[in-house]
Amino acid sequence: MMTRPVPALHSAYSEFIPLSLRWNDVDKYGHVNNAVHFQLFDTAVNNWLMKNGLFQSETGPICLVARHSCDFFSEVHMDDQVEIGLGIKQIGTSSIVYAPALFTSRDEKAAAQGEYIHVAIDRKTRRPSPIDEATKAVLARLLLKSP
Amino acid sequence: MMTRPVPALHSAYSEFIPLSLRWNDVDKYGHVNNAVHFQLFDTAVNNWLMKNGLFQSETGPICLVARHSCDFFSEVHMDDQVEIGLGIKQIGTSSIVYAPALFTSRDEKAAAQGEYIHVAIDRKTRRPSPIDEATKAVLARLLLKSP
Amino acid sequence: MMTRPVPALHSAYSEFIPLSLRWNDVDKYGHVNNAVHFQLFDTAVNNWLMKNGLFQSETGPICLVARHSCDFFSEVHMDDQVEIGLGIKQIGTSSIVYAPALFTSRDEKAAAQGEYIHVAIDRKTRRPSPIDEATKAVLARLLLKSP
Amino acid sequence: MMTRPVPALHSAYSEFIPLSLRWNDVDKYGHVNNAVHFQLFDTAVNNWLMKNGLFQSETGPICLVARHSCDFFSEVHMDDQVEIGLGIKQIGTSSIVYAPALFTSRDEKAAAQGEYIHVAIDRKTRRPSPIDEATKAVLARLLLKSP
Repeated sequence: MMTRPVPALHSAYSEFIPLSLRWNDVDKYGHVNNAVHFQLFDTAVNNWLMKNGLFQSETGPICLVARHSCDFFSEVHMDDQVEIGLGIKQIGTSSIVYAPALFTSRDEKAAAQGEYIHVAIDRKTRRPSPIDEATKAVLARLLLKSP
Repeated sequence: MMTRPVPALHSAYSEFIPLSLRWNDVDKYGHVNNAVHFQLFDTAVNNWLMKNGLFQSETGPICLVARHSCDFFSEVHMDDQVEIGLGIKQIGTSSIVYAPALFTSRDEKAAAQGEYIHVAIDRKTRRPSPIDEATKAVLARLLLKSP
Repeated sequence: MMTRPVPALHSAYSEFIPLSLRWNDVDKYGHVNNAVHFQLFDTAVNNWLMKNGLFQSETGPICLVARHSCDFFSEVHMDDQVEIGLGIKQIGTSSIVYAPALFTSRDEKAAAQGEYIHVAIDRKTRRPSPIDEATKAVLARLLLKSP
Repeated sequence: MMTRPVPALHSAYSEFIPLSLRWNDVDKYGHVNNAVHFQLFDTAVNNWLMKNGLFQSETGPICLVARHSCDFFSEVHMDDQVEIGLGIKQIGTSSIVYAPALFTSRDEKAAAQGEYIHVAIDRKTRRPSPIDEATKAVLARLLLKSP
């Protein structure tokens, strides 16, 4: 019906953000609800930006999410140890395409694979704002090798 | 950088599910956080299935989310009246591709546009299970006209 | 072991805020998770304040939650129609004690009963700020009759 | 207006469950929303029960939340390191009164202090079910010293 996406391997990532699950993340099917994955990806990206001091100025540009997607490969349970592998696929003039992946300690293959696109905007005009070179240099550390 | 997605119009949909926002849906930027949209789309699809008695048997197949994505076009605020337009793009052997869209009462254009793919599986084997013809006939009521 | 709290009756309230449930509100026991009730009470109070224009100034005092509690009397399910009955038990110098109650359309008795205490504070000093008389007059419309 | 609750000290607890915050936990006031604390307390209690194998049988009694409350003493922010101190105040015939407290690494005093009451019930009859002695013995390890 459509091209089947393939889960990334743990070895494709070098940056990992461990995150804890919550009791109410699990829905009536006994697995972590699909909408929770987006909270985790959102948190991983923003934690990394905060830790690296990017887009944290009170007056500078902020990043809004333009697109967010996730392919689900295997069910995640409450007792799983979860970490988000964080990489970047593309850095544009004012946009960043992240490729976060959710890994459990049970599996070398991602349980879920996301795409998360940030657009840097001016706080006041709400229009796209070019990302400066110093910021791009830090972001480049997360660039994934092309397969 | 990539093909720019275009927001759907309210008139493209015939089924709408009104949903209320919550105080904690809003993040520090003062708008509804991106991860909330996925909760709303998930709820709209499942509410519609419940209302129509599809996949509600205690022993029959259940639907898992294989893929979920959202393009964000405009910011949504706490005082917005929100409804989800629900349509179906494709009905496969054991999968359904929904195209939920979030509308506020302020705008004929969708504030956010999703894609939500359900795969029907057998409860025990967790393998894809063909969707029966009676179910397909009800689902077909939501089929969107091709543009 | 302790004094058993008693659920309020629908007839004790005059203000109701209908709120929709979400698919992921339900946990693995198939009922709405206890933590969700606090989101609903929080939303009901803030919706009412917004609708009545109280504490909405960009420079005036804001209300922080000092205490929030809930007694759970009966399980709530995804297909329940839910509304929050909103009343006030006490208006102090700079605090307001709300008594929100969750009702389903199945029952005249509250399924859950909360207590929600707001303290008005100055935005900058973060110290309690006296509530003015005009605001108190509007709040007084929600005062519950003593039993 | 009422007896002011006092925050517990870190030293009063011996069991701690570290939990990560999420980007969307923060509301428009820039602090962790009050409703999030209840998700964290709920998770801490259930994680501890799972880790200790209590109430995990597929056929035995389950614990429902009868009451949950929280006093909020200081604001928590997205970059705070958070852990839940977990203790028990009282073990009854079929109920357990937990006293979870939220600590940040900034402060020896709890930022928020909860009370969380579980009632053990029979899965089928939904009636209270006495807690067996072996379970009580494990729970007793969390008993807080009376002040």
